[in-house]
Amino acid sequence: MNKPERVRVSSAALRAMVSTMFERLGATNEDAAIVAEVLVWANLRAVDSHGISRIPRYVEMFESGEAKARPAMVVAHPRAAVITIEADAAPGPVAMHRAASEARAAAAQAGIAWAAVRGTVHTGAIGYYASEVAAAGMIGIGLVAGVPNMAYAGSIAAGVATSPIAIAVPSARHGTVLLDMATAVIALGKIAQFRQSGTALAPGMALNAKGEPTTDPVQAEIPLPVGGAKGSGLSLMIEFLTSVLMGNPIVAEFHSGTPEGQRHRQNGTVIAVDIGAFGALATFKAQVDAAIDAIKALPREAGCAEILYPGERGSRAFAERGRNGIPIAPTAWQRLCKDAAKLGVTPPEPLATG
Amino acid sequence: MNKPERVRVSSAALRAMVSTMFERLGATNEDAAIVAEVLVWANLRAVDSHGISRIPRYVEMFESGEAKARPAMVVAHPRAAVITIEADAAPGPVAMHRAASEARAAAAQAGIAWAAVRGTVHTGAIGYYASEVAAAGMIGIGLVAGVPNMAYAGSIAAGVATSPIAIAVPSARHGTVLLDMATAVIALGKIAQFRQSGTALAPGMALNAKGEPTTDPVQAEIPLPVGGAKGSGLSLMIEFLTSVLMGNPIVAEFHSGTPEGQRHRQNGTVIAVDIGAFGALATFKAQVDAAIDAIKALPREAGCAEILYPGERGSRAFAERGRNGIPIAPTAWQRLCKDAAKLGVTPPEPLATG
Repeated sequence: MNKPERVRVSSAALRAMVSTMFERLGATNEDAAIVAEVLVWANLRAVDSHGISRIPRYVEMFESGEAKARPAMVVAHPRAAVITIEADAAPGPVAMHRAASEARAAAAQAGIAWAAVRGTVHTGAIGYYASEVAAAGMIGIGLVAGVPNMAYAGSIAAGVATSPIAIAVPSARHGTVLLDMATAVIALGKIAQFRQSGTALAPGMALNAKGEPTTDPVQAEIPLPVGGAKGSGLSLMIEFLTSVLMGNPIVAEFHSGTPEGQRHRQNGTVIAVDIGAFGALATFKAQVDAAIDAIKALPREAGCAEILYPGERGSRAFAERGRNGIPIAPTAWQRLCKDAAKLGVTPPEPLATG
Repeated sequence: MNKPERVRVSSAALRAMVSTMFERLGATNEDAAIVAEVLVWANLRAVDSHGISRIPRYVEMFESGEAKARPAMVVAHPRAAVITIEADAAPGPVAMHRAASEARAAAAQAGIAWAAVRGTVHTGAIGYYASEVAAAGMIGIGLVAGVPNMAYAGSIAAGVATSPIAIAVPSARHGTVLLDMATAVIALGKIAQFRQSGTALAPGMALNAKGEPTTDPVQAEIPLPVGGAKGSGLSLMIEFLTSVLMGNPIVAEFHSGTPEGQRHRQNGTVIAVDIGAFGALATFKAQVDAAIDAIKALPREAGCAEILYPGERGSRAFAERGRNGIPIAPTAWQRLCKDAAKLGVTPPEPLATG
């Protein structure tokens, strides 16, 4: 009773509630289910900034027309290893899950496939799509470009986006190994968490609105790129690999200063690599495990209790939250319940509080 | 006359000399020419750590059998978008240039192609292979994994390699835009340059042999990963995408402690994406230019004279060194001339000194 209590909600109940909400917002049952699945997956992996906290924004985007609950997506397969998807402002999970499915199917034939998504919104935790591909015995790679919000090396303004890259590979004993990294030192969602908890940022993480370095989480607005020119260069390249490849540039349009250029939109790519085209899948999985075992056995620096492989922390959270439910801050839960009530959806009873 | 004078040697003369040296070392004319081309390209772009300074090590590797001047490479094309190359210890430029050629040809059909190289040595500046693909109106991506020499996040030992990633795209007005980045904060070659000039490293760049942080370039041995867990995670993923995909693991073998596990070897990948499969190449190039123009016009931080796009510094060096010759330190030039003399090759007359 010492601080506002978090509720814990079962992931299945949360998924059902969110799915029904998206149906009421106009999505098909199938589309509503995948949006709920991807959002709750992020919460299960403790990437709460990409989970159900985004629902109010989705509601806004459906109302404003920035996102469409019933998009007319157009999928083409112009070459053996290329799929293009005109997303028509579909929710990111709808467009990117489709890209992952198409990439998997094409890679099963061609060995590799590149599925490009043009004009979607809020792709969420792109590790989901890479992991979907990995679950099929392939390597999955996801890329997303969005509206500039991160400093470009040498500049004091938002020049490029914190565009993430996700890479997932299957293993035999360690499940899916998943690297899911933004090109920024710190994600905007993390800055928001620091703001809520009143914790100062470390130096070198962000600039304020005037482009001055700051550690104040209230002032911090523009995250800095990881590794300076490396992070911002990688982000710019992701813009070329996604937006420009699909003829839907975001960086250049944003800086042109038109209102259209500022509009929220994203372009993404899912790449699938069929491991079986190169060798035996079982050998691949065993060799991934062997490398991870070697990494985890390395000598540790002072204060490091355990060396983690990419995605290990998220996998543990997934297991724990799957068992005990997803913890949700009271304000977020109230907000979600209010949105649900408006749509005539009854929220589930929390499993527990605290 | 104030310090030991550098010589300047014309790139064409240097290329001819190096090519003849590799012929005398047993390579075919064609293979010798591509090794010379890739090494001198690195010097032209001012990546001197990956240029002709590597020749003495090549001579050693040919003598020890680690590298083969007459490899029996085996190229297979098991799926429409997949090429595999058993390099048989071919010099990196021979195997990776072949990968770039095969990837380009297959991508012209399938839209995308992934050419995987197993068991090569010293791939050099992998930006070369990505750029070759970009010159054909495609996006080129290069990856290489090698023997661990970089700390893994949380560890004080070399756990993974400084494995680089290179991405090249064509533009209309800015030439090839090329990001070529190691996953380390600082490259080993750069540490060697700091050592030679007696300059201290910045904090957070490297560890000494005992795994302690150091700024002393003489003590510095283990570079740290860029962005901590991001850089070392990306490096581990590159090991999975190259070595493990081709069934030739390096990380796990290295940590097994066998002499074989310590042996120098590399695995690499060249990916080609045919821009024309997605849209018009001319539009792509124009949109790359527009994004670069926007980036270069961003407001600058104090002390930043110019915002650079990825590869811009290297392109300028390329033009300047192409005109005025490649500057070579006196000791390096003497060493190269000595190696050339042993092979009965007469070095060219330097263009100038100083």
